[in-house]
Amino acid sequence: MDFSIFKSLLTEYNSFIVTSHVMPDGDAIGSVLALTMALEKAGKRALPVINDAVPKKYRFLPRSQNVRPFIPEVDKAEVMVCLDSGDSERLEFKRDLRDICPLVVNIDHHRSNSMYGDLNLVDDSYSSVGEMVYFLLKSLDINIDYDIAICLYTSIITDTGSVKYSNTTPSCLRVLAELVELGVRPDIVNREVFEKKSLESVMLLKEVLGTLKVSAGGKLAYMTVTKDMMIKTGAREEDTDGFINYAREIEGVEVAIIFKEQDNLKVKVGFRANQWVDVSKIAEEFGGGGHVKAAGCTVKGPLDKAQELILASVNKYLKEGLQ
Amino acid sequence: MDFSIFKSLLTEYNSFIVTSHVMPDGDAIGSVLALTMALEKAGKRALPVINDAVPKKYRFLPRSQNVRPFIPEVDKAEVMVCLDSGDSERLEFKRDLRDICPLVVNIDHHRSNSMYGDLNLVDDSYSSVGEMVYFLLKSLDINIDYDIAICLYTSIITDTGSVKYSNTTPSCLRVLAELVELGVRPDIVNREVFEKKSLESVMLLKEVLGTLKVSAGGKLAYMTVTKDMMIKTGAREEDTDGFINYAREIEGVEVAIIFKEQDNLKVKVGFRANQWVDVSKIAEEFGGGGHVKAAGCTVKGPLDKAQELILASVNKYLKEGLQ
Repeated sequence: MDFSIFKSLLTEYNSFIVTSHVMPDGDAIGSVLALTMALEKAGKRALPVINDAVPKKYRFLPRSQNVRPFIPEVDKAEVMVCLDSGDSERLEFKRDLRDICPLVVNIDHHRSNSMYGDLNLVDDSYSSVGEMVYFLLKSLDINIDYDIAICLYTSIITDTGSVKYSNTTPSCLRVLAELVELGVRPDIVNREVFEKKSLESVMLLKEVLGTLKVSAGGKLAYMTVTKDMMIKTGAREEDTDGFINYAREIEGVEVAIIFKEQDNLKVKVGFRANQWVDVSKIAEEFGGGGHVKAAGCTVKGPLDKAQELILASVNKYLKEGLQ
Repeated sequence: MDFSIFKSLLTEYNSFIVTSHVMPDGDAIGSVLALTMALEKAGKRALPVINDAVPKKYRFLPRSQNVRPFIPEVDKAEVMVCLDSGDSERLEFKRDLRDICPLVVNIDHHRSNSMYGDLNLVDDSYSSVGEMVYFLLKSLDINIDYDIAICLYTSIITDTGSVKYSNTTPSCLRVLAELVELGVRPDIVNREVFEKKSLESVMLLKEVLGTLKVSAGGKLAYMTVTKDMMIKTGAREEDTDGFINYAREIEGVEVAIIFKEQDNLKVKVGFRANQWVDVSKIAEEFGGGGHVKAAGCTVKGPLDKAQELILASVNKYLKEGLQ
């Protein structure tokens, strides 16, 4: 992708809001911080805005304490650069983006991007928006210093699951190499992003593993997080991130499900598939959505009724696939 | 490191045994297979010999079914190439290596290598021996095909913990990029090497997490695997690999310990440190050894006595460090 078109923006404009989606992950936060710092190096005014809290594990990143939600009437800029967001709703500004900034630039790697920008730099061949920002900065001749490097490294490493996912390309591996040459320590980023766990989350994991059930001849594995478990262990919702993989990684399992009991009689359901089931279709049946191999929905409880309903549907998909 | 000295071996010799250490990991197996296939491409006779079983998770590698233990009186060659083995004892040939092959070549990246070869290519700046074999093949002008590439990729990815450890360098990241260009699929290697878990191992994890205890003001976390748990879940010893990380990754923990109850009243003890404690010293106190941040020993049981003894020693180290 040719990023040089961005050059004219630097000639014409002086103030930028750099933003990304709510429930921000490492790619959202890393790319917002990297681009903000780079724009400042280019002599621009740049404001990092995310309409949600920065998760604790990303607060080691330089300038992460500067990221904050939008303040109406106060935050103004000529250009809004939206990173890693497939549509404008996920940015949660709750108003037309052009009421805040006359020009909207959309930089993203999601295939399903709705092209909501005045300028859309969208290409799903990139591992992460962090990788895109790396090439953007190269084309703008903005020097990548250590602070920018560690943000971009965090972007790429979180979106590729530490080079484990299928979006891991020769290009992103070479960018990681460059960033390590600029001083990034892979072991330190890894410890911050993947390792630091709370005691509460480990105790919750123990409880949740206790609910693991395998059925459909070993093709289906599911587990449950009850409200009682959350109270008993003192864990937070984000502590359940990744639990579903314990079900997905069992040999022979095709579909993994996690049921999370919510307040007001709702149940959040997460789905993962390993090879041939399209779980986005199952999630859509229940008003949710997602990707072929990772999807989710929220259904009405109580827990046992919700499980019955969902399991019946999944079993149908598993049977169809086996015919 | 200059590998060109290896060139003369290819001119002078025609038969090779390629070997590595017992309890082989991904780097041992990957580098043995890659070098065996490369030597055959160069028109040589090459025999992959490891005096131990190939763990199930590496059997997806091409030619892995050809790896077998040494057969005395049958296996003969001019040159033995020893990979990833810090000393000759870990190869477990149980005889002088020169009784099998007149010439011994030692290729390794362990700092503590005892230089037991006639030719020693030892350099601890490499992430893995797989990375060394990559550069060796480049210097020999042997074309790296897909089968060799997936073995080298597995080597590097296992020894760097999927680019998470401190041995992850720009060089090894660039080699990974080259190997992906040759057709290696990162997600598929990841699934084979890191993900496929048995149901038994997940059930054992649940039991072991139930024993987790945190003490010393949150600096020490330890867990226990009893013989009863192994029987109850039907898990195997290798299923406990990595369990200690659940203790190590808890925020604030400096030393993590796992106690594994053995037959004949013995207890295996594994140690990990995060930052400042040298656990190899603790392990050495009890007749064991290892690295600064990962070590182990075996002590006399029963379990509760062994735990008492070890915990007293660790608490001493933790207190000393805090002074």
